[in-house]
Amino acid sequence: MEPSKPKRKPTIRDVAAAAGVSYGTVSRVINGGHWVSDDARSAVEAAIRATGYTVSHAARSLATGRSDSIAFLLTEPQHLLFTDPTFALLLRGAAEALAQRSMTLVLLVAGTPAERANVAKFVRAGHVDGVLLISSHEDDPLIDSLLEAKVPTVCCGLPLGHVGMVPAVSIDEAGSARTMTRHLIDRGHRRIAMIAGPQDTPGGLYRLEGFRDELGDAFDPALVEPGDYGFDSGAAAMAALLERAPDLDAVFAASDSMAAGAIATLRRAGLRVPEDIAVAGFDDSGLAAQHSPPLTTMRQPWDRISVEMVSLLVDAINGLPHDDVTLPASLVVRDSA
Amino acid sequence: MEPSKPKRKPTIRDVAAAAGVSYGTVSRVINGGHWVSDDARSAVEAAIRATGYTVSHAARSLATGRSDSIAFLLTEPQHLLFTDPTFALLLRGAAEALAQRSMTLVLLVAGTPAERANVAKFVRAGHVDGVLLISSHEDDPLIDSLLEAKVPTVCCGLPLGHVGMVPAVSIDEAGSARTMTRHLIDRGHRRIAMIAGPQDTPGGLYRLEGFRDELGDAFDPALVEPGDYGFDSGAAAMAALLERAPDLDAVFAASDSMAAGAIATLRRAGLRVPEDIAVAGFDDSGLAAQHSPPLTTMRQPWDRISVEMVSLLVDAINGLPHDDVTLPASLVVRDSA
Repeated sequence: MEPSKPKRKPTIRDVAAAAGVSYGTVSRVINGGHWVSDDARSAVEAAIRATGYTVSHAARSLATGRSDSIAFLLTEPQHLLFTDPTFALLLRGAAEALAQRSMTLVLLVAGTPAERANVAKFVRAGHVDGVLLISSHEDDPLIDSLLEAKVPTVCCGLPLGHVGMVPAVSIDEAGSARTMTRHLIDRGHRRIAMIAGPQDTPGGLYRLEGFRDELGDAFDPALVEPGDYGFDSGAAAMAALLERAPDLDAVFAASDSMAAGAIATLRRAGLRVPEDIAVAGFDDSGLAAQHSPPLTTMRQPWDRISVEMVSLLVDAINGLPHDDVTLPASLVVRDSA
Repeated sequence: MEPSKPKRKPTIRDVAAAAGVSYGTVSRVINGGHWVSDDARSAVEAAIRATGYTVSHAARSLATGRSDSIAFLLTEPQHLLFTDPTFALLLRGAAEALAQRSMTLVLLVAGTPAERANVAKFVRAGHVDGVLLISSHEDDPLIDSLLEAKVPTVCCGLPLGHVGMVPAVSIDEAGSARTMTRHLIDRGHRRIAMIAGPQDTPGGLYRLEGFRDELGDAFDPALVEPGDYGFDSGAAAMAALLERAPDLDAVFAASDSMAAGAIATLRRAGLRVPEDIAVAGFDDSGLAAQHSPPLTTMRQPWDRISVEMVSLLVDAINGLPHDDVTLPASLVVRDSA
């Protein structure tokens, strides 16, 4: 049975009537919020929620000159788009969320200084209404340029160096790392190593923090080795850890790709996973379930991350208030740990 | 040693002097070619070549309101961007060629009717100066929309149903297929099957044509099975061929992914490659060299395809004349055939 539908869609005039303000005031709130008092803005926002009003994009585009498109802007080398499976997951979710709003997703890659300059020019020229910034490194040079040009922007993951200045959708990095560390402790492991991510990324910094906090007095800095989230770096880090601490009995890698690299090194050393050394990953990026053995990992809620980013960005474009969103990751126990 | 450089870059005034026309005439030729006689246009084009003049994009952008960006428009389902390795190769080459021209590559995916409508609106609104159309299926619904809006467009592969109406960069499909078929014949194979691509794509249609022509009287329609270029379709086609023609001794697949799928099926049937059945692919997409056994294949010149597409498109944007470009593919003999 279909739910009953209202007879007609609420219009901007219904919002104005409910808020007790003029049509023009509602329009100004929707289209950026300039020249509106705080009281009027609050009343309009409450009326938008109460009436269930949704913006007509075609009408708004005519009125405002908007492009009805947003950029999925990856500030990483282009090859990562194809080798890091997490970008494909984010992109798919964002494309679906935008298609539902009749908006176009424009994929931009700015991995080099020349590309960054060209992309900044393109975005600042108004060819997109806002930016989903897919970047993990601290002080990404594009953030300042976007902030200065007042381009509505939402970050994927906490923007280290700009936290609080740009809305972000992130997972509870430290809490997720504590959950996995606790799982390894509960399985009886006592010499647990970590292959951490780059320390200028939130996933590198805060996952290590959670790992350290959960281990408490058992934390041993000699059991930490950094990687860059990629397979090769996981393999190299595992080799370094084995050399330094041959007695380790478990490894927690800050990405599934690094976990897979670590397992390749362990195999070459004649060690079995998980019998000799347990290996856990992070992401549940698709690779984890297909791996042999299947990886125990922390599942990031990829679809929700994309949906929340698009939702935050559309609010930002419409001048509506927005808070950072923090989502939980969940433990997925498979065979590797 | 660096080659000697001219003292200064030629300007539009040098072109005008060499062509014996006014500054304004040169400008009109460069910026779209309206209101220019055929004689004047020819003189300007010759003068551009003679002086070595290149367009200053920053200056042109100010003068013309261009976006200095072009779309890499994929009219296929989004997941193919990540599962078909040929798109990544084309994208990389196009991004590099555009970065050299200080232009931005905008990646658009239009795999569904809703996405096509949104993308058509975005492109027709002038947010990009032109389109690299990465589409292989006949009568792609976006071509007519782009033609009607006079958006400069270059196709990757011959646009079946629109040949001659849109400039294209393609490989010699039929000739390449003849080369591979001849290789298999020369290796002593007599019952050669083909896993063809979709017949509404140039790679499906013309590779099969070349295969048929090279075999001549030895061609047997029972030894042809279609696929969709993907791994699973290659595996399924191989199973059908084995059932229908257990005496076949070689298979030519119209993509490396289908060749890999065919080999998986042969392995499950207990057959060895190439000892029992030789398998050849097409593309040399990266998968071919990494496969076990490494695939014998036809190498498409990916970098040149991208470079030629960008070059043709920039000419089209500047109103310069352009012809279709056909590039050769080359036989790469590895272990599988």
